[in-house]
Amino acid sequence: MGLLTRIKGPRDLDRLSHEQLDQLAAEIRSFLVDAVSKTGGHLGPNLGVVELTIALHRVFDSPKDKVLLDTGHQSYVHKLLTGRQDFAKLRARGGLSGYPSRAESDHDVIENSHASTVLGWADGLAKANQVRKKDDHVVAVIGDGALTGGMAWEALNNIAAAKDRPLVIVVNDNERSYAPTIGGLADHLATLRTTDGYERFLTRTKEVLERTPVVGKPLYETLHGAKKGLKDFIAPQGMFEDLGLKYVGPIDGHDIEALESALQRAKRFGGPVIVHCLTEKGRGYQPAEQDEADRFHGIGPIHPDTGLPVKTAAASWTSVFGDEMVKLGREREDIVAITAAMLQPVGLKKFAEQFPDRVYDVGIAEQHAAVSAAGLATGGVHPVFAVYATFLNRAFDQLLMDVALHKCGVTFVLDRAGVTGDDGASHNGMWDMSILQCVPGLRLAAPRDAEQVRLQLREAVEVDDAPTVVRYSKGVVGPAVPAVGTVGGMDVLRKAGADRPDVLLVSVGALAPMCLEIASLLDKQGISTTVVDPRWVKPVDEALAPLAEQHRVVVTVEDNGRAGGVGSAVAQALRDAGVDVPLRDFGIPPRFLDHASRKEVMAEIGLTAPDIARQVTGLVAKLDGRYDSPASNGTANAKAVEPARD
Amino acid sequence: MGLLTRIKGPRDLDRLSHEQLDQLAAEIRSFLVDAVSKTGGHLGPNLGVVELTIALHRVFDSPKDKVLLDTGHQSYVHKLLTGRQDFAKLRARGGLSGYPSRAESDHDVIENSHASTVLGWADGLAKANQVRKKDDHVVAVIGDGALTGGMAWEALNNIAAAKDRPLVIVVNDNERSYAPTIGGLADHLATLRTTDGYERFLTRTKEVLERTPVVGKPLYETLHGAKKGLKDFIAPQGMFEDLGLKYVGPIDGHDIEALESALQRAKRFGGPVIVHCLTEKGRGYQPAEQDEADRFHGIGPIHPDTGLPVKTAAASWTSVFGDEMVKLGREREDIVAITAAMLQPVGLKKFAEQFPDRVYDVGIAEQHAAVSAAGLATGGVHPVFAVYATFLNRAFDQLLMDVALHKCGVTFVLDRAGVTGDDGASHNGMWDMSILQCVPGLRLAAPRDAEQVRLQLREAVEVDDAPTVVRYSKGVVGPAVPAVGTVGGMDVLRKAGADRPDVLLVSVGALAPMCLEIASLLDKQGISTTVVDPRWVKPVDEALAPLAEQHRVVVTVEDNGRAGGVGSAVAQALRDAGVDVPLRDFGIPPRFLDHASRKEVMAEIGLTAPDIARQVTGLVAKLDGRYDSPASNGTANAKAVEPARD
Repeated sequence: MGLLTRIKGPRDLDRLSHEQLDQLAAEIRSFLVDAVSKTGGHLGPNLGVVELTIALHRVFDSPKDKVLLDTGHQSYVHKLLTGRQDFAKLRARGGLSGYPSRAESDHDVIENSHASTVLGWADGLAKANQVRKKDDHVVAVIGDGALTGGMAWEALNNIAAAKDRPLVIVVNDNERSYAPTIGGLADHLATLRTTDGYERFLTRTKEVLERTPVVGKPLYETLHGAKKGLKDFIAPQGMFEDLGLKYVGPIDGHDIEALESALQRAKRFGGPVIVHCLTEKGRGYQPAEQDEADRFHGIGPIHPDTGLPVKTAAASWTSVFGDEMVKLGREREDIVAITAAMLQPVGLKKFAEQFPDRVYDVGIAEQHAAVSAAGLATGGVHPVFAVYATFLNRAFDQLLMDVALHKCGVTFVLDRAGVTGDDGASHNGMWDMSILQCVPGLRLAAPRDAEQVRLQLREAVEVDDAPTVVRYSKGVVGPAVPAVGTVGGMDVLRKAGADRPDVLLVSVGALAPMCLEIASLLDKQGISTTVVDPRWVKPVDEALAPLAEQHRVVVTVEDNGRAGGVGSAVAQALRDAGVDVPLRDFGIPPRFLDHASRKEVMAEIGLTAPDIARQVTGLVAKLDGRYDSPASNGTANAKAVEPARD
Repeated sequence: MGLLTRIKGPRDLDRLSHEQLDQLAAEIRSFLVDAVSKTGGHLGPNLGVVELTIALHRVFDSPKDKVLLDTGHQSYVHKLLTGRQDFAKLRARGGLSGYPSRAESDHDVIENSHASTVLGWADGLAKANQVRKKDDHVVAVIGDGALTGGMAWEALNNIAAAKDRPLVIVVNDNERSYAPTIGGLADHLATLRTTDGYERFLTRTKEVLERTPVVGKPLYETLHGAKKGLKDFIAPQGMFEDLGLKYVGPIDGHDIEALESALQRAKRFGGPVIVHCLTEKGRGYQPAEQDEADRFHGIGPIHPDTGLPVKTAAASWTSVFGDEMVKLGREREDIVAITAAMLQPVGLKKFAEQFPDRVYDVGIAEQHAAVSAAGLATGGVHPVFAVYATFLNRAFDQLLMDVALHKCGVTFVLDRAGVTGDDGASHNGMWDMSILQCVPGLRLAAPRDAEQVRLQLREAVEVDDAPTVVRYSKGVVGPAVPAVGTVGGMDVLRKAGADRPDVLLVSVGALAPMCLEIASLLDKQGISTTVVDPRWVKPVDEALAPLAEQHRVVVTVEDNGRAGGVGSAVAQALRDAGVDVPLRDFGIPPRFLDHASRKEVMAEIGLTAPDIARQVTGLVAKLDGRYDSPASNGTANAKAVEPARD
């Protein structure tokens, strides 16, 4: 690590020769394999952009120039070159974020891990430069996979329209997003890649450029003039040029010198330009290079030599869903599956193997996933769109206007719902149960264990005239939590000991074991507690208000943002039924959560059994104070809770 | 109207000659001008697609084949040809919807008025046909403006990937969405339009086709084979072909015979194909043809001969905003404006005239509007994105993840918020105050009158570290509603007469006059009522809970969906403060609203002063019942409401 440790900032790269830069690249790869095999993280994407990141920081002057990375999981090399080389606590509490982070460094701009945003950011920054008459550069790196997202198109369309606004777009083309990229664009990029070679392009370009005086006029004019002559030698510029974007490429993304040369040219263009770089995800690490599935996109701790996981994975929520989908697929020919470029992570791989004609990978395109699902449902089949909960936000309008308004039977399966923790703020699935509340007709299930995932998925796909949603957590599925009875469509998980129970605890999804623990803590304080799992949290079960009326306090606990969540919906249902029992709702506070383990985050926000039990105890004590006051044989609170006493 | 009245369904078109079809087109134009000048509606778009719609229904067999219209405001001709010729109550209660409607006809598929969805629907329907082994056709009509939306790109990318799945895409290219289309795509379409002519194309193609036997093999193979030879004569197929889509065009969109011929060819292709039609918005109606702004896109009642509005427009919420933006633009050089293809409708035209370098029309691309705003804010300027409230749903993820997470000072101005009525379910702005509740740091203003629009817009653009939202209604701005005092940051609109007031009425935005009316109705029943306007409804003002505690009942009234709206947020704030005063929240019920006037819709959903006053009276009576019961000198409800009595 002779060279790497001497790099304190991007300008330290300036004094290195190209031989030294190649050595630095090797050191970085070795560092990444070593560090990420210990902590887990995004290994493959970072191994693919070592040379590209070095070249970017050689050519552009960050943070004055803005170097923008789409999605951000390929920022490790960028971090190493901008003064952040302690990876010991990567993605852990107090350690480096797995994404860019403005709190960590002035070199970081976009923290968000949702894909396809970078061109929009770049367009905005370039416009701001123009308004403020600044000549700083903006360079945006986007993967070929992220180009399948609609935002990229919207941005390209705008960027191309402003011929005089400088902006360098680097397409990091590794032929994959998480998995191989699909669609017409991917085919087109393949054409660009294969028609003649970049080597031939470079050679010919060089020959022409060497013959052409460039002093005193912009190089792109020269290039532009030379273009006709070069046309038969260069790869076709295709649709990018049709949109009005200059195109440079394809460039070998592992050749620092070639990259620098291309980026320098692009930087001097004075307008929007695309630099098309070919990289290899997982480059230089044999286990990744040989993994066809996702090239070690995101991994847990592994043995660095073999690439094998340190721990064998236990059954996950995802795998329970995936296995049940295969069964459903066998039983019903009209069930089809949709993924937005995440077949494997959302558990649809087995389904795809069994029913290759009934699975659709739409690319990083959640909007299209939802709207095409509306079409599929209208066409007489039942689509199941499996997606990370946080990414559903991208398809909210389509879920509302295309699926729900048209009464389409589409099932949305939300994986990684609730606090996910180590991927940071933008990966937590803490929004879905809030924003979905206002969707007319939508039914939302929050299964509490593996058996409920299977059952509720089956109930969901039976609904053919409305959207259904099944949401569950990340990781290992918890223990089975049996029901001890039912009230309406709800499962009673625990009956209160007392005739006149104090607390009705409404447990949402995976928090059932925690709620049972809360109940048992309350029990020790002499507070009798019923625990009910509504299973379907939207609409609120009609049996809930009468049940609430038999208790003195209602408490809701959910793994979702408090604002407008299940607690609010339950409170509203009780108000509408005229049941004014005091209610307290526990969930995630309305703020973005820093990365840490799920357990640490839950503790920090007070979503633990002891914390909630303590608060409920306090509330009951307050009510008891009133209840026991001399004049109170008939206090309205008591009345409201138990009208039978009146 | 000799021919039109005899058309009861699409198949009645089959027996007409092309001369008769031209006559029918003329009759339809005349009908449209006559009918829509009386009712108002989308005149320009429908005048542009008369011949195209006739040709579509001649070539395709709806409803077996699916004829899909993007955005749907150009469905009038389609309605006329599918048995719906009573336009007397167009867009009015009990009359025809201004958009396709499944309830009206089996010929209608997509009701949603949000743009750019049709290709996704088509992809889904085509996939369903494939799964179900049906050979029905799917044809989707999309405007060039709607192609700027990201969803269109996501869909094209998927459609192009399935070479064997038949799907006809008709690009209705009138060079405008609401206004002239912008961006790289628009430039590219212009190239397609102008390089050689469609006439030359048609002639040459015909010559070749006539010489080529097509029996026994698909015509596209023939075309494909002939392509190389034709290449120099046909307009360049450009980016569509780069994506792998067959391209036919450009076609004169007002020549029925040419259209039929192109559509027939496309129908037989057996794969995805684009038919590029050139049409003229407002065609055949001189006032529309001469209107450069939006070609009579959507109009109120007009004089049919002159095209002039029957009523002169009074000052609207939109114009108040527009005028204030111009003032702000003069005062602050760092303020820029963004619109998604609706410069005029959202009131930014004056700003654009004064500050052409500080306004960005991004196309029908709400996602890009929001994410580029994040970039602009990060680059040191303050963007104001003005958009219809319902269309903000498209940018939810970007508002949350790009703007809010990055603490960007971006102001979102939501026009047409609340019940808008006559445009039907998908135009009502009834979602924003629900889905925005969970966005950390976001501040949301609901101004009640013109003065508050000006004031709160100014307050909003002062915030530079969080998203701000200003939302207001459609149409004429109401009377000034002065404050009679303040509590915290809230305006008191009416003080309760009694020392111990009964009701705290929380009024949201434009409903202030209605809330004052409710208060005065309650007053007549002896129920003393305070009316407060929080102005900023998010976050809930800290002064609200203590104020609520001084009342026996809290009532919230909002022009937004009840689920997760302001009422729920207020209720949660009260719970968090330990204030368990009974609360009732009034707003829009969680269902899609049929088209009718705003007033009719408000009456139907019970959002009127008498309705709400009656319900509140009932609630207070119920409390009084308890309050006055013999044993009740100290009921807990009373306690909770007025702890001072204890």
